[in-house]
Amino acid sequence: MQTPRTTPSRTAKRAHYDTESIYAILDEALFCTISYAIDGQPWSLPTAFARDGDRLLIHGSVGSHFIREVEKGIPVCISVTLLDGLVLAKSGFSHSVNYRSVIVFAQAEKVEDYDQKVRALALITDQLIPNRWADLRPETVSEIRKTTVLSFSLDEASAKIRTGGPNDEPEDQELPIWSGVIPLETVRRAAIPDTSSQSLPLPAYLR
Amino acid sequence: MQTPRTTPSRTAKRAHYDTESIYAILDEALFCTISYAIDGQPWSLPTAFARDGDRLLIHGSVGSHFIREVEKGIPVCISVTLLDGLVLAKSGFSHSVNYRSVIVFAQAEKVEDYDQKVRALALITDQLIPNRWADLRPETVSEIRKTTVLSFSLDEASAKIRTGGPNDEPEDQELPIWSGVIPLETVRRAAIPDTSSQSLPLPAYLR
Repeated sequence: MQTPRTTPSRTAKRAHYDTESIYAILDEALFCTISYAIDGQPWSLPTAFARDGDRLLIHGSVGSHFIREVEKGIPVCISVTLLDGLVLAKSGFSHSVNYRSVIVFAQAEKVEDYDQKVRALALITDQLIPNRWADLRPETVSEIRKTTVLSFSLDEASAKIRTGGPNDEPEDQELPIWSGVIPLETVRRAAIPDTSSQSLPLPAYLR
Repeated sequence: MQTPRTTPSRTAKRAHYDTESIYAILDEALFCTISYAIDGQPWSLPTAFARDGDRLLIHGSVGSHFIREVEKGIPVCISVTLLDGLVLAKSGFSHSVNYRSVIVFAQAEKVEDYDQKVRALALITDQLIPNRWADLRPETVSEIRKTTVLSFSLDEASAKIRTGGPNDEPEDQELPIWSGVIPLETVRRAAIPDTSSQSLPLPAYLR
């Protein structure tokens, strides 16, 4: 949603407020960075998350300083960044990066219901490794008690996206300096089994 | 440096305060996320950076809202995260990720000297694409005037690192559930030339 906070001061044409753009970026990301402030001092923490419809879910230890501050419902800023390429121009000034980023302004709501907590943990696990949760032994009551789940509205979220090649100044176009894009990609390498799993077949969802 | 702010409340054994560990993570990263707060409201922004000895350098447009706030010298928190692997355990609770992260608490110092600004822009460009700067047409005075360079001390920085396989509970070890690590890697794909560079050879540093 476009609000004063989600309207960038620069490169406004890169801003997107439609849920399709925002959700696609969130669904591809493997972590978010959550920021909050105490007495004017900002703190940031990278953490796993999942999107659940129009909500963003995170989890953490009930003893974590970060969780105990954020669960109070103070304002947070959640940042997700996917780097897609390095954009090489003929001048340093026109160098850029191709990226897809999301920023969310929200406050935490604590998920207290037992089944909803289990469901959130399943979604967070499956965001990283699709179809993993169904394979695991059930969580214990103690494990769920030790875990805090926080939920954030995605109402005040926005995306910024840059794609394409360099935008050199017209007078630079003829310079004999190589320009173009170096695509970046995050890849998953072959799974390495733990010693306890040497004789177990690799599940289909990991192939 | 270990200070109350850089001492994690959880998993203290993952914390590192030696400059070798911290600098290696910063030198590999392609962007950082800078957070700051205005009237208790946190803001975050991903941006390119370079390490220059015991300083971290960023740049931005003189007109950027972000730059104009941070250049005042308010407290910032700078976060860098490299994801190295997904750690699959036999329980959801023991799932984890292998990562290397750095957090820096600092305040901006504005770089005013012309030559120091140019040097900073060279370092930021070469952090993304080593040896690129030497190939580019010189910056113009106008471009340097339009760009703000900010410098941050790395004195109050710390790293967190997780490596290795899953740490399942002893009673879970025998479960016939595949466990192990899926390594993650950020790779650079083949360079795509701009239309203005179709007939130019690819520089050696991009091969």
